[in-house]
Amino acid sequence: MSAAKPAVSVLGLGMMGSALAAALLKAGYPITVWNRTAAKTGPLVAQGAAPAADVAEAVEAGELLVLTLTANDAVRELLEPLADRLRGRTIANLTNGTPAQARELAAFAAEHGARYLDGGIMASPQMIAGPHAYIYYSGDQEAFGEYEDTFRVLGGARYVGEDAGRAAVHDFALLIGMYGQGIGTMHAFALAKAVGIPAKEIAEPLRDWLNAMALYIMEEAEALDSGEHLTDVSSLAVNQAALPNLLNTLAGEGVTTEFFQPLERLIDRAVEEGYGADGLSRLPDLLTPRR
Amino acid sequence: MSAAKPAVSVLGLGMMGSALAAALLKAGYPITVWNRTAAKTGPLVAQGAAPAADVAEAVEAGELLVLTLTANDAVRELLEPLADRLRGRTIANLTNGTPAQARELAAFAAEHGARYLDGGIMASPQMIAGPHAYIYYSGDQEAFGEYEDTFRVLGGARYVGEDAGRAAVHDFALLIGMYGQGIGTMHAFALAKAVGIPAKEIAEPLRDWLNAMALYIMEEAEALDSGEHLTDVSSLAVNQAALPNLLNTLAGEGVTTEFFQPLERLIDRAVEEGYGADGLSRLPDLLTPRR
Ligand SMILES: NC(=O)c1ccc[n+]([C@@H]2O[C@H](COP(=O)([O-])OP(=O)(O)OC[C@H]3O[C@@H](n4cnc5c(N)ncnc54)[C@H](OP(=O)(O)O)[C@@H]3O)[C@@H](O)[C@H]2O)c1
Ligand SMILES: NC(=O)c1ccc[n+]([C@@H]2O[C@H](COP(=O)([O-])OP(=O)(O)OC[C@H]3O[C@@H](n4cnc5c(N)ncnc54)[C@H](OP(=O)(O)O)[C@@H]3O)[C@@H](O)[C@H]2O)c1
Repeated sequence: MSAAKPAVSVLGLGMMGSALAAALLKAGYPITVWNRTAAKTGPLVAQGAAPAADVAEAVEAGELLVLTLTANDAVRELLEPLADRLRGRTIANLTNGTPAQARELAAFAAEHGARYLDGGIMASPQMIAGPHAYIYYSGDQEAFGEYEDTFRVLGGARYVGEDAGRAAVHDFALLIGMYGQGIGTMHAFALAKAVGIPAKEIAEPLRDWLNAMALYIMEEAEALDSGEHLTDVSSLAVNQAALPNLLNTLAGEGVTTEFFQPLERLIDRAVEEGYGADGLSRLPDLLTPRR
Repeated sequence: MSAAKPAVSVLGLGMMGSALAAALLKAGYPITVWNRTAAKTGPLVAQGAAPAADVAEAVEAGELLVLTLTANDAVRELLEPLADRLRGRTIANLTNGTPAQARELAAFAAEHGARYLDGGIMASPQMIAGPHAYIYYSGDQEAFGEYEDTFRVLGGARYVGEDAGRAAVHDFALLIGMYGQGIGTMHAFALAKAVGIPAKEIAEPLRDWLNAMALYIMEEAEALDSGEHLTDVSSLAVNQAALPNLLNTLAGEGVTTEFFQPLERLIDRAVEEGYGADGLSRLPDLLTPRR
């Protein structure tokens, strides 16, 4: 059993790892920190963290190991030489990775007597410990329960199942949403700039508009789960008329249209297949050609 | 000069046109309605609108003509045979179209003694007359001033310039943002469904996450206007590591990755060009290959 405030080692002090370590320090946890590039430990040591001389020392010092590296190949590289020392430790790997990688790492941990949790961080470093931050966790449920209070220091803690790969699925569903939104905003800015409108002039309307449109996500989900896609909001036929206008305008201003050509093709296909009176909620089911 | 409540003819009673006419009726305006498929006038006539027997009668009845058809070729088709009767009228064309189409229609109107305003509706039909709806207008400034009160019945009225094409640019900047967001949400749902998570289970987290990420639009705009793209939030290098994981996971679940391949290539290119430590705000400037 862990004490009220277990010793935590934070490995990887990039933008995210540093934010996690700082939040835990501020909450009074005994923290050991390690980073490949040692200089990054400085600010955290100044805040009271103990610097580990090497990874082995960091693994030794913490009953809970929090890892936030660029990618999981680095996690594997880091932990494999220390496999013998992992027994009894709990690994919370918050590095972005695939469900398959999470399952492999869970198996590796189990093999060496460690418990494994995989996490998907739904926050920027600046949001950590704030009201909107949360992390999806999956894997060892007992370990999650034991360290839940610790995890809650970082933001909300949402446990989504014993399958270590599950957190990554939830993470990726939201991330792909974010990348889509990012594709949208970058084109909005590119078009504005191309016609001489400063970015700051459209930023607020753009943010408010995306927030307003995000309200339809709830209706879209209902449509998807029920299979009722007829719309009284905006039909695929009307979008089929609008999108080429939009893309021609982008092209006329020298902005690439390649990011939206797949959407144009998809809407054309949906209308061809007889779904012109349906809303955009018809589209997700057309994205899985294998089925 | 128009009276306090000028006679308005609403041409095109699709989902949007019907919402506009209903709002004006509710505000006490004398409204004449016309629609190609006459049956759609029914509900509005029940609310007090006068049905026009044909387009000519609608043009005759209103000093302000509000048009919301599928596309501008239909607007042109409708008005051209009636060119002689347009003198003294003000046309508010809220049909989605390109800046070039708006300018052509403005020239056509001017030729026939009518004033022209082009509009971009930033709202769904359900939002019309509500607190979050607004419409961009451009074109004849005097006409805008004269009918501003009427326009305000429909939502906010934002006049963006004498160039009739300007409203479409603002409209399209926000619409392309919305389509990007839509690409994101449809893939989020497709991935969730592919692994057996019901859409409604991810809808709320997805909406909240997109809203949280939309807050960065303001910072992104500042970065774009200043040219300072170094980030302490999330670097292109970290996104370069995450995106292939994400796309492999989509592919593994049978969801197409083609919508995000241009983004993967763009981020690779940005990192190759030395922008790995920059944030996503670096990307919009890379979307205009011609420059
Ligand atoms: N930033 C965000 O907004 C955000 C949000 C959610 C999730 N995440 C995820 O959090 C993770 C870290 O992101 P970040 O923004 O903190 O990235 P970052 O600032 O670039 O930091 C990357 C960290 O990984 C370390 N690292 C990389 N390769 C390594 C290796 N082979 N061996 C040892 N250490 C290695 C780096 O060490 P050095 O200092 O020596 O280079 C650094 O500590 C990523 O998986 C990211 O997807 C980030
Ligand atoms: N719905 C939205 O959320 C939304 C939001 C912002 C902007 N808009 C824009 O508003 C416009 C209308 O959209 P909507 O959603 O109302 O579409 P809709 O429900 O499909 O209605 C289309 C309207 O155009 C008429 N029409 C089409 N072709 C015509 C032609 N050749 N001659 C005469 N009338 C013709 C239709 O008449 P029939 O009834 O006879 O077919 C109908 O009245 C579009 O430009 C759209 O982009 C819509």
